[in-house]
Amino acid sequence: MPQLFPSLSALRAAARDLPPGDDAAAAAVAARQAQLTKPPGSLGRLEELVAWLARWQGHPPRLDRVDILVFAGNHGVTAQGVSAYPAAVTAQMVQNFAAGGAAINQLAGAAGATLRVIPLALETPTADFTQRPAMDEPTFLAAVAEGSAAVDPASDLVCLGEMGIGNTTAAAAIAAALFGGGGTRWAGRGTGVDDAGLAKKRAAIDAGLARHTGLANDPLRLAATLGGRELAAILGAALAARRAHVPVLLDGFVATAAVAPLARLRDDALDHALAAHVSAEAGHRALLAELGLAPLLDLGMRLGEASGAALAVPLLRAALACHTGMATFAEAGVANKQ
Amino acid sequence: MPQLFPSLSALRAAARDLPPGDDAAAAAVAARQAQLTKPPGSLGRLEELVAWLARWQGHPPRLDRVDILVFAGNHGVTAQGVSAYPAAVTAQMVQNFAAGGAAINQLAGAAGATLRVIPLALETPTADFTQRPAMDEPTFLAAVAEGSAAVDPASDLVCLGEMGIGNTTAAAAIAAALFGGGGTRWAGRGTGVDDAGLAKKRAAIDAGLARHTGLANDPLRLAATLGGRELAAILGAALAARRAHVPVLLDGFVATAAVAPLARLRDDALDHALAAHVSAEAGHRALLAELGLAPLLDLGMRLGEASGAALAVPLLRAALACHTGMATFAEAGVANKQ
Repeated sequence: MPQLFPSLSALRAAARDLPPGDDAAAAAVAARQAQLTKPPGSLGRLEELVAWLARWQGHPPRLDRVDILVFAGNHGVTAQGVSAYPAAVTAQMVQNFAAGGAAINQLAGAAGATLRVIPLALETPTADFTQRPAMDEPTFLAAVAEGSAAVDPASDLVCLGEMGIGNTTAAAAIAAALFGGGGTRWAGRGTGVDDAGLAKKRAAIDAGLARHTGLANDPLRLAATLGGRELAAILGAALAARRAHVPVLLDGFVATAAVAPLARLRDDALDHALAAHVSAEAGHRALLAELGLAPLLDLGMRLGEASGAALAVPLLRAALACHTGMATFAEAGVANKQ
Repeated sequence: MPQLFPSLSALRAAARDLPPGDDAAAAAVAARQAQLTKPPGSLGRLEELVAWLARWQGHPPRLDRVDILVFAGNHGVTAQGVSAYPAAVTAQMVQNFAAGGAAINQLAGAAGATLRVIPLALETPTADFTQRPAMDEPTFLAAVAEGSAAVDPASDLVCLGEMGIGNTTAAAAIAAALFGGGGTRWAGRGTGVDDAGLAKKRAAIDAGLARHTGLANDPLRLAATLGGRELAAILGAALAARRAHVPVLLDGFVATAAVAPLARLRDDALDHALAAHVSAEAGHRALLAELGLAPLLDLGMRLGEASGAALAVPLLRAALACHTGMATFAEAGVANKQ
């Protein structure tokens, strides 16, 4: 069940108390794969994907219900000139999602998935983290709870994405605080900032890191201090999904940075999550490497709004179709390996 | 229209007389992409895919009709012990395709595509190329014609794949003859041959190259001498598709090797073809690099039977859905870049 957390320490305890994967469900998938009319392992990652679904669903794999959750938030750090677009675009894009005109609407349709957009206090941006913590503890915990509540335990798979002008700056700051390297390592061009904007973005990240010290040992306070509501919601959704036995497809750089603090609290915290793609946003490949996540797609996308996650859903559907629909060697009368 | 070729020289002339892409159709796609509610270029290769479809279809892009063609053939070189499976499996798998039990049946369904399997004289394997040319000229041209005739000009996209025990050996021999390096560079484990089988495979390739010299300057004779009927049919289908304005998705190592001779006859011969994926078969990545083809997917697959091509179809459908369904900045009332 989704869960409200009264304090950072309660959230921390929950993030450290996670159910394991279901080895038996994964083994049942592997046993069937070995009988299907193909050389062993010849469907590559498609075979792993089906076993992964079974392991984290805890039953024979299915994809009857796929939910895409897009969380939206606004960021005080946009005052530092870090984005190519005005902050008003966050709310305008939320309207575009509602009207069906965005990329994610088309991709959700192509994926056979349900899209839900959750705007988070867009009229009240987080604080500018170069000046003070982006969120106080209650604000952060409320956003975590909204994300947690958005996950329906009846889902077979949840795709996590975001919209928020300025949020690649927040994501880069989180990555820098967790893994080192500063603004130079982690800042990218986001929606398409020019060289001057990129310099401001790097400077903002470094200013945030200089102002807020000692965060590395407290990943949740780190997320509250440098992140944003939509990132906190993604963290809450990923945690709730694990506890509800719902596998997760992560979208791009921001979604990955949002859940990275969980991996600092427990090494296997993201085992129920797959990186749907590696984005063209500069820091994403390095962030996935730090987390040991191998992306499914590498198509130069950098849109966010769960677009990369939605695009990977048909791959999972195809993998599952092979698993459930193929004949065994015995059924088909095909000779097995010599 | 599909075409019969009376001689290698007639085929060579046809392979050098290719229609160009439609720049205007591609430019119309690019112009619309620039208006859609996303940062420019943020859908990465999805944007390129739609322009590519338009360029080679020669009209506004569509994917109403996607055809998957799987050509099957048998190979005399299996006498050299190059495969982990008996040659009888080729015909058994063709029956499995007909019964709907193979991976490609499930993947075609998931892709919304029509599957057609074309067995090519399975009861009469090609000659063992370590002893003599795999095919004489009439046999080769007949297979090219079968492939050519299998392409319906009404298709919006054609996926080209194959089935044939022993055919990764033929494909590796073609790659070696075209690009150098011998059996060590190009032989992989195919359906899963062991170390001893891999050594035999390398030796067979090197024996074929030693027996048949002077092929590099005559790519079509090379294809007849080292290839197989299903590879010749894929070559014919790729050529017919270009002439009929039907874009092509290539499957794995064998399909790529099958069309590689065309690129030797004309530098832009494969511009209407995309590499759907890079296979786990050892030589495929190098072969794609030699041809300048950038694969869409990299999922460790090595099944053949058009499986990788079929898996990429939903990506193209998703790209097209974004292009046709998204709102423009003006329609959505979203502010454009500052």
